[in-house]
Amino acid sequence: MDGAPCDATSVSCATPGKLKTTETARMARNYREETDNIGTWTVPADALYGIQTARALDNFNLSDVHLKDFPEIVVSLAMVKKAAALANAELGAISARASAAIVAACDEIIEGKHHDAFAVDVIQGGAGTSTNMNANEVIANLASLKLGRRLGDHSEIHPNDTVNRSQSTNDVYPTAMRLAVMSKCAALVEALEGVCRSFDLKAREFADIQKVGRTQLQDAVPISLGEEFAAFSDAIQNDIRRLLQISEVLREVNLGGTAVGTGVNAPGGYQELAVARLSEIFGTPLTPHRNLLAASYDQSAFVTYSGILKRVAVKLSKISNDLRLLSSGPLAGIGEIRLPPVQAGSSIMPGKVNPVIPEAVNQVAYEVIGRDVTVTMAAEAGQLQLNAMEPVIFYSILNSTRLLTRAANMLNEKCVAGIEADEARCAELLNKSFAMAASLVPVIGYEKAAFAAKLALKQGISLREAIMREGFLDAAELERHLPAQIGLSGFQPRDRVRS
Amino acid sequence: MDGAPCDATSVSCATPGKLKTTETARMARNYREETDNIGTWTVPADALYGIQTARALDNFNLSDVHLKDFPEIVVSLAMVKKAAALANAELGAISARASAAIVAACDEIIEGKHHDAFAVDVIQGGAGTSTNMNANEVIANLASLKLGRRLGDHSEIHPNDTVNRSQSTNDVYPTAMRLAVMSKCAALVEALEGVCRSFDLKAREFADIQKVGRTQLQDAVPISLGEEFAAFSDAIQNDIRRLLQISEVLREVNLGGTAVGTGVNAPGGYQELAVARLSEIFGTPLTPHRNLLAASYDQSAFVTYSGILKRVAVKLSKISNDLRLLSSGPLAGIGEIRLPPVQAGSSIMPGKVNPVIPEAVNQVAYEVIGRDVTVTMAAEAGQLQLNAMEPVIFYSILNSTRLLTRAANMLNEKCVAGIEADEARCAELLNKSFAMAASLVPVIGYEKAAFAAKLALKQGISLREAIMREGFLDAAELERHLPAQIGLSGFQPRDRVRS
Amino acid sequence: MDGAPCDATSVSCATPGKLKTTETARMARNYREETDNIGTWTVPADALYGIQTARALDNFNLSDVHLKDFPEIVVSLAMVKKAAALANAELGAISARASAAIVAACDEIIEGKHHDAFAVDVIQGGAGTSTNMNANEVIANLASLKLGRRLGDHSEIHPNDTVNRSQSTNDVYPTAMRLAVMSKCAALVEALEGVCRSFDLKAREFADIQKVGRTQLQDAVPISLGEEFAAFSDAIQNDIRRLLQISEVLREVNLGGTAVGTGVNAPGGYQELAVARLSEIFGTPLTPHRNLLAASYDQSAFVTYSGILKRVAVKLSKISNDLRLLSSGPLAGIGEIRLPPVQAGSSIMPGKVNPVIPEAVNQVAYEVIGRDVTVTMAAEAGQLQLNAMEPVIFYSILNSTRLLTRAANMLNEKCVAGIEADEARCAELLNKSFAMAASLVPVIGYEKAAFAAKLALKQGISLREAIMREGFLDAAELERHLPAQIGLSGFQPRDRVRS
Amino acid sequence: MDGAPCDATSVSCATPGKLKTTETARMARNYREETDNIGTWTVPADALYGIQTARALDNFNLSDVHLKDFPEIVVSLAMVKKAAALANAELGAISARASAAIVAACDEIIEGKHHDAFAVDVIQGGAGTSTNMNANEVIANLASLKLGRRLGDHSEIHPNDTVNRSQSTNDVYPTAMRLAVMSKCAALVEALEGVCRSFDLKAREFADIQKVGRTQLQDAVPISLGEEFAAFSDAIQNDIRRLLQISEVLREVNLGGTAVGTGVNAPGGYQELAVARLSEIFGTPLTPHRNLLAASYDQSAFVTYSGILKRVAVKLSKISNDLRLLSSGPLAGIGEIRLPPVQAGSSIMPGKVNPVIPEAVNQVAYEVIGRDVTVTMAAEAGQLQLNAMEPVIFYSILNSTRLLTRAANMLNEKCVAGIEADEARCAELLNKSFAMAASLVPVIGYEKAAFAAKLALKQGISLREAIMREGFLDAAELERHLPAQIGLSGFQPRDRVRS
Repeated sequence: MDGAPCDATSVSCATPGKLKTTETARMARNYREETDNIGTWTVPADALYGIQTARALDNFNLSDVHLKDFPEIVVSLAMVKKAAALANAELGAISARASAAIVAACDEIIEGKHHDAFAVDVIQGGAGTSTNMNANEVIANLASLKLGRRLGDHSEIHPNDTVNRSQSTNDVYPTAMRLAVMSKCAALVEALEGVCRSFDLKAREFADIQKVGRTQLQDAVPISLGEEFAAFSDAIQNDIRRLLQISEVLREVNLGGTAVGTGVNAPGGYQELAVARLSEIFGTPLTPHRNLLAASYDQSAFVTYSGILKRVAVKLSKISNDLRLLSSGPLAGIGEIRLPPVQAGSSIMPGKVNPVIPEAVNQVAYEVIGRDVTVTMAAEAGQLQLNAMEPVIFYSILNSTRLLTRAANMLNEKCVAGIEADEARCAELLNKSFAMAASLVPVIGYEKAAFAAKLALKQGISLREAIMREGFLDAAELERHLPAQIGLSGFQPRDRVRS
Repeated sequence: MDGAPCDATSVSCATPGKLKTTETARMARNYREETDNIGTWTVPADALYGIQTARALDNFNLSDVHLKDFPEIVVSLAMVKKAAALANAELGAISARASAAIVAACDEIIEGKHHDAFAVDVIQGGAGTSTNMNANEVIANLASLKLGRRLGDHSEIHPNDTVNRSQSTNDVYPTAMRLAVMSKCAALVEALEGVCRSFDLKAREFADIQKVGRTQLQDAVPISLGEEFAAFSDAIQNDIRRLLQISEVLREVNLGGTAVGTGVNAPGGYQELAVARLSEIFGTPLTPHRNLLAASYDQSAFVTYSGILKRVAVKLSKISNDLRLLSSGPLAGIGEIRLPPVQAGSSIMPGKVNPVIPEAVNQVAYEVIGRDVTVTMAAEAGQLQLNAMEPVIFYSILNSTRLLTRAANMLNEKCVAGIEADEARCAELLNKSFAMAASLVPVIGYEKAAFAAKLALKQGISLREAIMREGFLDAAELERHLPAQIGLSGFQPRDRVRS
Repeated sequence: MDGAPCDATSVSCATPGKLKTTETARMARNYREETDNIGTWTVPADALYGIQTARALDNFNLSDVHLKDFPEIVVSLAMVKKAAALANAELGAISARASAAIVAACDEIIEGKHHDAFAVDVIQGGAGTSTNMNANEVIANLASLKLGRRLGDHSEIHPNDTVNRSQSTNDVYPTAMRLAVMSKCAALVEALEGVCRSFDLKAREFADIQKVGRTQLQDAVPISLGEEFAAFSDAIQNDIRRLLQISEVLREVNLGGTAVGTGVNAPGGYQELAVARLSEIFGTPLTPHRNLLAASYDQSAFVTYSGILKRVAVKLSKISNDLRLLSSGPLAGIGEIRLPPVQAGSSIMPGKVNPVIPEAVNQVAYEVIGRDVTVTMAAEAGQLQLNAMEPVIFYSILNSTRLLTRAANMLNEKCVAGIEADEARCAELLNKSFAMAASLVPVIGYEKAAFAAKLALKQGISLREAIMREGFLDAAELERHLPAQIGLSGFQPRDRVRS
Repeated sequence: MDGAPCDATSVSCATPGKLKTTETARMARNYREETDNIGTWTVPADALYGIQTARALDNFNLSDVHLKDFPEIVVSLAMVKKAAALANAELGAISARASAAIVAACDEIIEGKHHDAFAVDVIQGGAGTSTNMNANEVIANLASLKLGRRLGDHSEIHPNDTVNRSQSTNDVYPTAMRLAVMSKCAALVEALEGVCRSFDLKAREFADIQKVGRTQLQDAVPISLGEEFAAFSDAIQNDIRRLLQISEVLREVNLGGTAVGTGVNAPGGYQELAVARLSEIFGTPLTPHRNLLAASYDQSAFVTYSGILKRVAVKLSKISNDLRLLSSGPLAGIGEIRLPPVQAGSSIMPGKVNPVIPEAVNQVAYEVIGRDVTVTMAAEAGQLQLNAMEPVIFYSILNSTRLLTRAANMLNEKCVAGIEADEARCAELLNKSFAMAASLVPVIGYEKAAFAAKLALKQGISLREAIMREGFLDAAELERHLPAQIGLSGFQPRDRVRS
């Protein structure tokens, strides 16, 4: 549960926290004891974390997902702690020596050296206190080591009094999580842009392939396959715009609010200084939240961000559905496009190749949509000055972002980039359909055109034949309004897109 | 807002509750004043309801849906009040004369005579107190009128002391709602059975039409169209079983628990007697809940019922999706079946007919699924001895039940009953597909069969031709394992269904 | 079902669509027959709508909610039709005489004169075609009457060929719905601003009332009641910003795209002209969508809008929860504030007054959150060039907007505006709590402070006493860091809010 | 990604599937090549899985959760494969020698020896084909090794032709998942029973502690703390009943249906025999599904099961909310109970102890509720003869079951078992409240009682005093109906629970 070095012969190893002090000397080598105002607890002897983390490991064993599984959480925590240490030293709240040690410890974490020590479950009670204390303890121990002390010796660098100085979980935790979300949002945007590029390439490749447009799964008017793919890209580009817009909102942080946004225990000027330092470290300008009390409890920015993730999920799922429809068959479906085969489709049906990549995207989308409900309920459950459910909000959002990023990359690389058009099939279906009938409405009116279409379908004749048989138009008029050879008629798909 | 008779020239009419006593004599004729311990309020002079209802009308103007829009709510409330009056009289808690008047009033309501007086919004604060008081006031007034008194005179029949005797909203309201839900659940079951009957008829009609089975929208093994329709019916029949099973659970009522399940103010023996009387009136045996405190706050039975409604929604939506897929085209899609045309499909595309009935079913399903989230959140929001969110739970469930009932009837009558098969299209697609390839696996092995299928698809030849060209089987063996004429091969769909 | 004037003695009246032509002369006076390419159908003789609407009334009887119940739908449809008629006439696609008649008809509808004729169910199959045809038929009939023709005579003004000229449901319907949503969004913003104003007033009124802040329902650091109410306002103001931001996005319309965004049947220049005319009529600048194919199927703007509505719901629900917590009691709870009593709280417990207004807000929020799932699923169900599920998307969004608007107004007027503080109770709880303990951390360190707090709680003594007993601080130091009289200590709540 | 033994110096190692055959000899030792009808792919030389698994590893890298993380998936797959091998041998479809080798391989897997080889992502396209092929390949290789062959040599035991004989992913995968769900459901039931036992113990311990009941967070009638805890237990017991009921439904399996439920390629009698063998292996009687076509696509049993999990989540969350409310304070809240402290509550506020265990339960509940939406959407997305979204359904359900099991155990062990009552606080709040007022309604009527309660609250006097001051009752009457000393009045909580 806590990665303690542990002799398999000792069954009591399994619950280190409950070891009695009467254990053997050998056990003593493997564990150290720490004490807080609740009591004494053992910690693996070489653990960078301390008693509060060990308690959390014992309390929360729920999801099998831990802080370290989201490196952006670990890095963002270290960035916030570094900014606080710098501001604290500048304002005289901690010594320059302590600050330097803390900064050095944070830099190592940011470089990825101690991720394994961030061990608590991503789902935890306590509104993130376990996460914050995990960071405080690891940093305090690393800094103490640098100052020549041993693990667990907090006499110079104390997790609460030094590392957490001028801070509360209430401000540190959501600030760090905003950084984490922003950094992963950028990766998602990049993945979506990749999908757009592939669709755009395909749109150009398929620009001249005319085909039946379909509404409500019924044959509608002609479009080009290129237009269809360009519309996939355009719709995703709108998603990207929304993601960038909400990212802006996340830049407003409540660092400096300390407990419930009162700023209690922070020296004057701390808030502005800490946020400024954090902006430098993170490399993106951050702004202090305008109402620190509201900022302490209000998860709305994350609710909105989750809503945008849900929108992306809806879009990718809809497009995946379309790719599956258009490639249905290969012989008894629509079959206008072919997806690249990436694995055998069936354990029993030989030669079957299934649209497994879009299907996986669909499933990711359903998980993301479900997690939006999770985020919503957790946000609604905030009470008074805090939202105790922040951990599941942040976990859900980071997980959804990661899932969508991977799904977008998978869709791009394993599917879209390799799609082929079946031009002959597109033409065959277009020519046997009545997709051109709408063009006749301005010429002969809706009712006659509808009559002709119904007649043609019933008698199995072409729409042209039905119109001539009824005398609605003669052959020359027909040729003008209903060209026999679709695909030569000079559709101008690019006219439908505003440059 | 409250249906008060009101002269349009008098703007003060719009807010009757706030009329000053200095208003003109004319207004006095249209309104009566009533007083509770909060203050004085006006009520339309001829209203059967009283001050508590009038206050609720003023407080809650949210959904535009009122109790009377769900007659089953009104009737169920009257049944519960009648049962309580009978039990109260038997136990001496109210007089026989009062009981008789109340029972007569309730009987009129059950007959549908005073539904308009049940006027409060279905979404209301107060855990249903406004609904219960609406019933108490209407019944008190009706009973008082029968005893020769005027509206608003509670000296003999008091809404709280007489009609509500031995009762609390905490027990009366959920008990009545269970009755309402059970009665509408029966209508839903009937509607679903209708859909099953139509699918069963079609299953027999289409029993001999062979076609391509499809998994993941890719051609799979052959099935019959009859089997496909029989599977629709079978899946719905399972839903019906679950609905009947959960209906059983709803028969457990907490009548007699009064405030928070303590039974305070109810005479000894009241609970059993009241439930027995209610069973007789409702016509279905009801049982007293085994833990009245739990019963007062716990909405789990409704959460489960809503979950089953969601399941029905999922099923009807999936089937509607399938009907839309199978009827796609008419010329550039699958087109194996034709749905009956019920309206013109487009304002611009002549002759287009769309699958509007299944599409409407889909939308009902999405609303029902959304309402399940509403029910879930409302159930989770219960606190301590009560769930204040009961009104939105009951409204959501009754609305979902009604929507599904109507959608099922619509699907049955406007669509399923009139579906036609396109037998030629089914055969065409089956014969050009490689749906039979799986049959070769036991004969030549998966790998050779897969090789042949891929070769055939690539070269545009038949699977038979590919197999012979590769020498995997000779013509005679092929005829045995891969009959040239599908549809004659003696599929036995009925073997796949256990009788 | 369709409001036909109907003799109650004739039971066949109930299903006008199915009347045989052999009915009596009396019936003939009440109904007219109309014919489309599916067949003949009867329409109430004086109905402004025609056969397509009558078919839709017969097909969809699901929700008991009709277009006319959302007047903004009716008005927006008429605005779009008017804009199209103006553009069509300018481009020579319809005659000036026809255009003038259509414009006059639309103006009457915009004034609210014919809302009852917009009768179809808000949940309907066909992607809004029934809604569009309802508008086309009513406008065609009104315009025809103006030109001296009778109802149902389409020889001069045809619903499809004239009123719907250069249009498709694919572009008209979502364009009109964007207008409808924008107009109701403005009402929601106004309602939320009202809530903010009330909270701001209360924040000033309660600025000097010190109280315990609470995190995770446990006593935290002191805040003022004014700060707490200001934070309610601030959080809602952020919601308003997001609503205004998404409103901008809705101004991008796809009018002119006609069928699936191809612009088929629209004359050159129509798109820009129609959008310009619509901007003038609507009074807000609208912009043409940059990709008309994407615009035809993509419901993302509505998904995002629904997500923002959900955010508002979460916020109002959280605040309602807080109001209920803070007013809990009156004697055995927190009781720091008193909500205005608006109705008796119980049918059995005398004197009980419940927080019915916040409870109703909670329930509205749960419905809105559920409807967001509905919108999400409907958006995901779009296929290829269209989303057939648009009707349930638009209905859900308009309903949620209306519910939230009413709930916000109710919360404001019936609750927030009348909230009173119990200053004595605030002081009592603050003084007996250890809320000031955090201030000691910079002075004596976290561990000693924690020890003292635990000791005080265990022994039932004050924190000051515990600290002195342990010798951590002397009386003078204590007075400086832990003032005996909270409420005099000069908290500066306004410092915590950035001006 | 695939656990391949891989020299860190070789960057090409990262994408083993794409290794060129021209790689060095050293690489050749680490990888073997396999070929299917799509092409050639490399597999780690010592991998028990084969090319189809390797392709899936390359295709799906989404969730960081793999089959092996749910051992019940691995074991259930092996059980199904074993049952099939036995049935196949009995019916002569495979040799006794092959069957024995397969059975031996399966037995080792069931014992837990090869879980690491089950490596594919739990979210995958292909309706579970990758999972089924992962099992087929591992078992084929293990069995081949037993028969003296090397990894990848399928000449005697072929993954498709031998291990998967008479099977399809369509029947094997959902059958195995039903077994997995049933086995984990049993663990959840056990965990919930543990919670009930603890609540029951506390109910007895607290049976005589009278306290204020609360509805809508307002003081209601008196109850005992024991009753309150007994109601927690009772409500959970109802959940257990529903879990057991739905478990019954899961026993109906579609094994033997093979592709889409046609039974194609399975010998006569196979279905009954395979299900019988599987019942023996699993140790619980299973029944063949009555309609194999419906069983192939219909995920309703899982939708219902997920709905019951959601119900459990709602229950545990509601109870956790109550525990947090009742323990609020410690000094400025309700404080009737004390939860055991398990970790320091704040990084800045000394002595603060938070209800972290119930908070973690809440968050688990929100995740489970979100996953129910995921399951619902995935179930609705089934098309025609199959539901391609099964993987995310099964993953979500197994994950939710595991989360709830762990949360229930955590709640039980870390919280409920250690709850202490603050009897004095219960008495204090009860005695100062007007909780007894309801008892007066049958004596003096609702209106007088309400008047007295309001008067008392306003003037800060006791209810008794108000009643006497108004002359409603004299002292003797009062003593009879409103005992001064609550807690001595002989409440009979056990009367409210039916034995």
